[in-house]
Amino acid sequence: MSSVRRIPAPTLERLAAYLTCLREMQEEGVAKVSSEALGKRAGNNAAQVRKDLSHLGQFGKPGVGYEVGPLRDRIVRALGLSGGHKVLLVGAGSLGRALARYQGFRREGFEICALFDNDPQKVGHKVGGLEVFPVEEIATRNRELRAAIGIIAAPGPAAQAIAGALVEAGVTCILNFAPVRLRVAKHVAVRAVDLSRELAVLSHWLSRRGRE
Amino acid sequence: MSSVRRIPAPTLERLAAYLTCLREMQEEGVAKVSSEALGKRAGNNAAQVRKDLSHLGQFGKPGVGYEVGPLRDRIVRALGLSGGHKVLLVGAGSLGRALARYQGFRREGFEICALFDNDPQKVGHKVGGLEVFPVEEIATRNRELRAAIGIIAAPGPAAQAIAGALVEAGVTCILNFAPVRLRVAKHVAVRAVDLSRELAVLSHWLSRRGRE
Repeated sequence: MSSVRRIPAPTLERLAAYLTCLREMQEEGVAKVSSEALGKRAGNNAAQVRKDLSHLGQFGKPGVGYEVGPLRDRIVRALGLSGGHKVLLVGAGSLGRALARYQGFRREGFEICALFDNDPQKVGHKVGGLEVFPVEEIATRNRELRAAIGIIAAPGPAAQAIAGALVEAGVTCILNFAPVRLRVAKHVAVRAVDLSRELAVLSHWLSRRGRE
Repeated sequence: MSSVRRIPAPTLERLAAYLTCLREMQEEGVAKVSSEALGKRAGNNAAQVRKDLSHLGQFGKPGVGYEVGPLRDRIVRALGLSGGHKVLLVGAGSLGRALARYQGFRREGFEICALFDNDPQKVGHKVGGLEVFPVEEIATRNRELRAAIGIIAAPGPAAQAIAGALVEAGVTCILNFAPVRLRVAKHVAVRAVDLSRELAVLSHWLSRRGRE
């Protein structure tokens, strides 16, 4: 169990953005950063940065700024990224296969430990070193794996049933790529990445500009 | 040029979510929907739904609700999804290849018309029927294609230079999958899909729960 206080989702998203900036800064050899400079890089003002970092407890000196390395470590701990998490991935189509091979997951401490699909043509094949199991085996496979995170990379109509199977198997956090709203029990947290939503926003902007 | 008024991004995202719900309802044979029912399905309250739909102009009768088909058409038009948009995709790695084959783009009226990568091993090969061109050819290729949307599916360090090349080629809307903040001119709109951000939020939730 962690002693970290509950941090609201919009703050978590900004902390993750700061983490990206701090990683870049470390690679550039930057040792110290002010809330102004970090804010500028992340697209927020200094007051917002200070407010967000106050969720991590007291540190940093007014007018002196933050040390990049320790600040990065602090955010990593607050986000629970230091431990490593097992992940079940459901869907071995083009998106699922890409996610299974996506290096960013491992870099952030997420290990995809099992891959599932309900297409008999895909079951038994290997993707990125992982064998594809049938969706009906999620619960039995997860008895040993004990993963708490599930990723749904399946078509919309299949997503709700998959979510149910994941929750039944003990998953409490779902990252959903299917363009449907999942109905899940209250103890389950869902984050949605909806590409059609992103496209809709871009499309509206374009239609306003009349560029095409 | 469109006569649609400028709609704020959070409203656009909710309108895109309503569109997903309305599509599901049409498939289920539902002909009419109240703002309450649509809100429940999309996870918003009825007042929010009515406020969002007011951006589309006056229609719907109090106490009667909306006709599913016409409401869907209205949102499609407001989002500029009826016309079809050409898209340049940069990055032919695992994510880029998945996006090139992703059916959702075409369904929403987005046609990936050219694929670019700066890896000589990938240039000249075909992905989903498209030949991979070198990144240096973005501008010359887009003189004929005249695409206004670019998708960046490249690693973080390469993303900024790619964004510059896309903007130089006439792109005004960018969907960025690289986990870095792009610096672009004011006339360019950027939407970011950052998987590490999503994972960070999930990870914090999990660390709070102490499930693993």
